[in-house]
Order: sequence, then C-alpha cells, then structure tokens
Amino acid sequence: MTSDRYMKGLREFKKHFGKAAVAYLQPLEEIYPKFAQVNMEFPFGDLYADHKSLDARTRELVALAALTVLGTLPQMNAHIKAALRCGATETEILEVITQMTAYCGFPLATNALLEAGKAFKEFDDMPKK
Amino acid sequence: MTSDRYMKGLREFKKHFGKAAVAYLQPLEEIYPKFAQVNMEFPFGDLYADHKSLDARTRELVALAALTVLGTLPQMNAHIKAALRCGATETEILEVITQMTAYCGFPLATNALLEAGKAFKEFDDMPKK
Amino acid sequence: MTSDRYMKGLREFKKHFGKAAVAYLQPLEEIYPKFAQVNMEFPFGDLYADHKSLDARTRELVALAALTVLGTLPQMNAHIKAALRCGATETEILEVITQMTAYCGFPLATNALLEAGKAFKEFDDMPKK
Amino acid sequence: MTSDRYMKGLREFKKHFGKAAVAYLQPLEEIYPKFAQVNMEFPFGDLYADHKSLDARTRELVALAALTVLGTLPQMNAHIKAALRCGATETEILEVITQMTAYCGFPLATNALLEAGKAFKEFDDMPKK
Amino acid sequence: MTSDRYMKGLREFKKHFGKAAVAYLQPLEEIYPKFAQVNMEFPFGDLYADHKSLDARTRELVALAALTVLGTLPQMNAHIKAALRCGATETEILEVITQMTAYCGFPLATNALLEAGKAFKEFDDMPKK
Amino acid sequence: MTSDRYMKGLREFKKHFGKAAVAYLQPLEEIYPKFAQVNMEFPFGDLYADHKSLDARTRELVALAALTVLGTLPQMNAHIKAALRCGATETEILEVITQMTAYCGFPLATNALLEAGKAFKEFDDMPKK
Repeated sequence: MTSDRYMKGLREFKKHFGKAAVAYLQPLEEIYPKFAQVNMEFPFGDLYADHKSLDARTRELVALAALTVLGTLPQMNAHIKAALRCGATETEILEVITQMTAYCGFPLATNALLEAGKAFKEFDDMPKK
Repeated sequence: MTSDRYMKGLREFKKHFGKAAVAYLQPLEEIYPKFAQVNMEFPFGDLYADHKSLDARTRELVALAALTVLGTLPQMNAHIKAALRCGATETEILEVITQMTAYCGFPLATNALLEAGKAFKEFDDMPKK
Repeated sequence: MTSDRYMKGLREFKKHFGKAAVAYLQPLEEIYPKFAQVNMEFPFGDLYADHKSLDARTRELVALAALTVLGTLPQMNAHIKAALRCGATETEILEVITQMTAYCGFPLATNALLEAGKAFKEFDDMPKK
Repeated sequence: MTSDRYMKGLREFKKHFGKAAVAYLQPLEEIYPKFAQVNMEFPFGDLYADHKSLDARTRELVALAALTVLGTLPQMNAHIKAALRCGATETEILEVITQMTAYCGFPLATNALLEAGKAFKEFDDMPKK
Repeated sequence: MTSDRYMKGLREFKKHFGKAAVAYLQPLEEIYPKFAQVNMEFPFGDLYADHKSLDARTRELVALAALTVLGTLPQMNAHIKAALRCGATETEILEVITQMTAYCGFPLATNALLEAGKAFKEFDDMPKK
Repeated sequence: MTSDRYMKGLREFKKHFGKAAVAYLQPLEEIYPKFAQVNMEFPFGDLYADHKSLDARTRELVALAALTVLGTLPQMNAHIKAALRCGATETEILEVITQMTAYCGFPLATNALLEAGKAFKEFDDMPKK
C-alpha cells in the first residue's frame, strides 16, 4: 500500500486537495483500503502527477467540465476547491460551468453552479495553512 | 434569423470550425432552421464569443472533456479539430481524453481516443485556407 | 409466449410502429425470444396500451424527449415515425428536440435532429398500407 | 442584463414557476448573474415562449421525461409544479414518470416518483396567489 | 392489482429486500399504486423470479454494477443489502464497485463505495428476522 | 512501458480478449501509447488480475451490466466475447442484458442485445487457437 506510485499520488493529491485531503481519503480507507490505494495510484499518481503534458490548473478545469456532466456534487465541491488551489479564478470556474449549459443542459449545470456558490464560501473560510 | 446575435455566433463558430463550418451547419438549416439559429446564437454568440472570461483554447479543452463523457462522437470529432484551430496541441487533447478515464471510465475514453486518431488525420488532410 | 399481455402489447406496438413492427421485432426474437416477449408485454402491453391516463401522441412525444437524452439513435428513428403515426406533426417533433438543447445540451440534441431528418424522409417513402 | 429577451424569458418563467420563480432565480443571480441571465434568455425567452409550435403543458410534460432520465431532482420538483400550473393533471405527470421505467429503468423513475409525491404536497400547500 | 404476477413478484422482492420490503414499497403505493404494481410485476415477477437462467446472487451483483453507473444512491443502498441477503460477501460487493472505477470513473464509484459503508452498518444493525 | 504492472495487465488482458487482444490494443498504441499503457496497467493489471476477490467470469458479467448502461457498443462486443472466454454461457449474458431493461430501460438494453447477436456469431467464426 505504500508503493512509490501511492506516495507519488498522495503527494499530488495533497497539492490539489490541501487540508481537505485527509478527510476525503479517510472513509475510503476505512471502507475498502484497496479503493483508496488505486484512487491515489491511478488518477493522482499516473495521470495528475504528469504536469508536462497538461498543467494542474487545466487538469482541474477539464475535471469540472466532466463533473458537471456527471452530476456528482461531492466531487464537484472538492474539485472546485482544488481548481482554486491550482490557480484557477472563480470567474474561470463559473464560465466553465456556464459553458456546460450547452453541453449537458441547464439542470445539471444549475446544480454545479449552486455547488460552486457553496464551495467558494467554504474555501474562503478554510484555514489556508 | 440574421439577428446580431446570430451573426456574432456565426463569426465565432467559423473561427472554431474553419472550413468545416458550412458543412456542419447546412443539414441543421435544412431540417429545422430554428435549431441552426439557436445553435449559432446561444453557444457561439452568447457563450463562446466571450473571450475575456475564458480563452478559446481552454473552452475547447473543457468541451472535449464534456464530449468524452457524453459519448457523442460526431461532435467529438468536430471539436478536436476546433481545439487544434484554437491552439491546443495534439498532446494536450490526448491528455484530456486520457484523464477522462478517471472520470467516465475506459470505454467512453477509448471511443474518444479512437475518434481523435481519425480527427487528427482528417485535420492534416484539410486545406488550411 | 402468446399470453394475453403479449397479444395486447403486440397490437399496441403495431399501432405505433406500423409496417416497421415486424422488422424491429424479428432480430430480438431470433437472439432471445424472452427479450422480445417482455418488450411487447411490459412497455406496450402494460404501459402504452393505457390510453386513458395519457394519449398515444403525448406518450410518443415524451418518449422522444427521453430518447434524445439517452442518445440511442435507432430507437429515436423508430419513435419519430411512431410519433408521426400517432398524430404528432413534424414541427412538434422538431420542437421537442430543440427544447432538449436546454435539458441535455446541443450535441445529443443535434444527433437527434439529424436522425429526425432521416426518419422524416424514410417515413414519406414508406408504403402507407 | 435587462435585454428584451431577458424580460420576455422572465415573464415566461414566471408563468411556469409562479411564486417559486424568485426563490429559484435568486441564488443563481448571487453566484453568477450571467448564468441567471442566459437561463432566462435562452430556455425561457427563446424556447418556452414559443407557444405556437408547442403548448406550455406539452413542453412541461416532455421536460419531466428528460428530467427523469437526467436524475436531477431539484429541477424535477420545480417542473412538476410548473406542469401543474400549465394545466397537466397529477395523473398525466405520474404516467409520464411511470412510462419512463421503460426508457431509463426503475431506479431513476422511482426517485422521480418520490419527488412527485413531495412536489404535489408542497404545491397544495402553496399560496395560489 | 393482486394478479398472479404481482404476488410472484412480491414474494421474490421480499426474498431480496427482507424486512425493508414494506418500507420501500409503501410510498410508491401511496403516490401511484400502478407504479408499485409494475415494479413488483415486471422486474421482480418477470425477471428476478427466473433463477434458472441466472442465480439471485449474480443478479444482485450485476444490479450493483448498473446502479454504480446510474448514480442512484437510494437504490444502491437497498440492493447492497439485497446482495448480502442473496449470499454475496462484502468483499465481492466492494470489488464490483472498485472494478466500476474503470467503467464509469472514480466519482460515481466513490459515491457507491461510501453508500456501501453506510449500508453494511445498517444491515448489521437490522433485526435478522 | 514494459513495467511489471504492464506485463501483468497484458497477460490478464490476453486471457479475456484472446486472439482479439492485439487488434484491440494496436490503434490505442498508435494514437497514444500512454493510453494503451494505463489501459493494461490499471483495469487489467490492478483490478482484473485479482481473481481471489472476484472470479473472471463474474467480473465479465458485471462489466456487461455496466456497458449496457453506458451504451458503448464496441466495448460491449469485445466484453461479450471475453465473457464467453471466461466461462459465461450465452444464456447468462442474454439474461444480464434482459435484466438491464429494469435498470436502464429498453432502448439501451435493445442495442446491447443486438450487439450480443453479432458478437456470438463472430465468436463462433473465430479461430479458437
């Protein structure tokens, strides 16, 4: 479980999720450690950690597009904050969600926008270090 | 039908779709002119034409993320070429699709990747002006 | 396999699908008769055959909305023709699809619209009795 | 922001959403005014306000079909009430949702049906003017 | 409403849902008895009751795969418990959900996994007869 | 690219895909080697190769459920053959697809069933070694 890929993924994950990283990972570890392991190893270790092909900010913006279409709000919330941590502005995030109205319609985009409102406030209230 | 918004949208659409713009729009015009009209007015006139909030290249990359999740291959093909026209590199496009394996799984991402292979070849064979 | 529900469903199915009914059903029968059976019994025998709660034309229009969101084009094609048989006009069908741009975005709605263009032509060319 | 299209859309929106219109729109305005603007202008100003091609009641019934497939419950709730305001009966709404079992399966249709139960009660308790 | 198919479906449903069966069915009965009826008759009476073609445990495992992709958590919760009742182990359930990361991505699979954590605890606390 | 995980995944992939493995992998390698690499390493090396938690036949049946819901027919075709190679019977495959009518509706299940008809014939015509 403490493979090099896991440690590499965990480091990348913490850059994106900040202080929220531990709270996100803990229930996954408790329910099925293997799930937490592949979650760190594959998306974060294998994909996100490659900054040369695509920078972290762009990776988070395309993730927000996908999450709007999927309609999975807990991950939308987490990745909105991750996008802010990786240098995206609130306006860029809101524009991505607004553009999604043309790709997945207003209902899914509306729910993503309302989540953005919540996530922005929570982010402002978080201790920054 | 030739409202200012339509003309603004059409100009933006042509920047993204290049020589393919007319062939994309024509069947829509034939089947239901109102559909072609709102397609130019809303996504391209209202959303895409705003470059200040989000640049054209980023707009196309987030569109590719959404289209991978949706699984709509004709639009995937068209927007891969649009992304190239707006300054995205082949590697960036392929990385967005590869990152999508973690958001919508391998089957949808695989079909998007195969479409990218086709679209890149077609783009290289297109007259550039 | 020739239960009352099956016969009731088959009669309703033939009202909606007309001369195309046999060709639609035959491959399902060949591959897995049970699938053809439940397809006649449940959606057509149990649901569609109830005209008191909802008329056949409205049933076909809401089916077109669902099929646009699902992106399943062969069924879209079949139900566009069914909608015409049940008294919907081409304009009503095109408006339902156009309205769907606001619910599932332009890519899925575009593919549904292109299928409508095809289905309208095929319907005009079909022997009417 | 107070374009003719916006005012036209807002008027149409208020016909469908009644006294709930302001509460629906306000958080969108607060989070991103542009989103609220295009939400009024495009679906309600450009699409819904056209009653000649498709009447308001049918527009709401096809919207319910789409929303059942999408699984977006807050919009399902709002549009069930809108459908009632536009003249659909409770039975018609429940039949559309029940028909959706054949298009998107029982889990999504069940969640829509439970939302209908809630929305009907809330609608009965709302001040009617 | 008390057709043979309904009674057959209800018996099968009770085998899968145990003591939770009544609480699941009651709101459906209250909102639209026809929905409760077809829910018992079709999936449980026509499909699930056929154990010869596919055993109950495998039926529940493939249902969990589908529910993970659909993202409908109340049904995920109910069918996780149904899978346990039909002989699936916690590990098998968690492996199906983990495998789904490759088919529908991590966000939907994560929400299914968190629901599994809840459902396992609730199942342990339920009276077993 | 020839990591241990890649080799482990490739061996597992070849057990599931048989003689079709090379033809499936080759275009992915040509378009983006990294995609082919993670496709072997993650789903096949990390997930499928674990036979203790879930046997290969059950893994393929739950994959077919997911692929029916997703509507991705090329992967449906490939995994139907993989399911046969891993010991599933034609009836079991057809029952999984038929059960999916209750989870994702008839349109997606119908397209999966038609693909099964094709895949069974192609499988019978393939050289078995």
